[in-house]
Amino acid sequence: MITNQLGERIKELRSKTGLSQEKFALSIEMDRTYFASVEAGRRNISICNIKKIADGLNVSLSELFSGIQ
Amino acid sequence: MITNQLGERIKELRSKTGLSQEKFALSIEMDRTYFASVEAGRRNISICNIKKIADGLNVSLSELFSGIQ
Repeated sequence: MITNQLGERIKELRSKTGLSQEKFALSIEMDRTYFASVEAGRRNISICNIKKIADGLNVSLSELFSGIQ
Repeated sequence: MITNQLGERIKELRSKTGLSQEKFALSIEMDRTYFASVEAGRRNISICNIKKIADGLNVSLSELFSGIQ
């Protein structure tokens, strides 16, 4: 499922920033519980929110999706 | 705006398939008017629908977002 793959990839990249879910969500002004559910693969997230997360992670959208089939 | 950039990229790749908007939308079982509004950059499209389009275009998500800032 694509939402799971994307959630895992976001979690991987967010972990590299050294920030907790809560602190990262705060840094991009996204609701903490919403962000947690995205990482858990439970959200059919929209492109605008995907972009917000990619920007917060300092990666391009192409990099964010790198390795996802 | 990311929706415009994505719409233009989808249009570029869809044009390469030689299919019209209508025929491409039909091939991926997506509503024709919805797909037209995605190409026009007017939809905050979700990851599941982005994946459906990428699959129809025979590109990875990373390729789909290639060149998009």
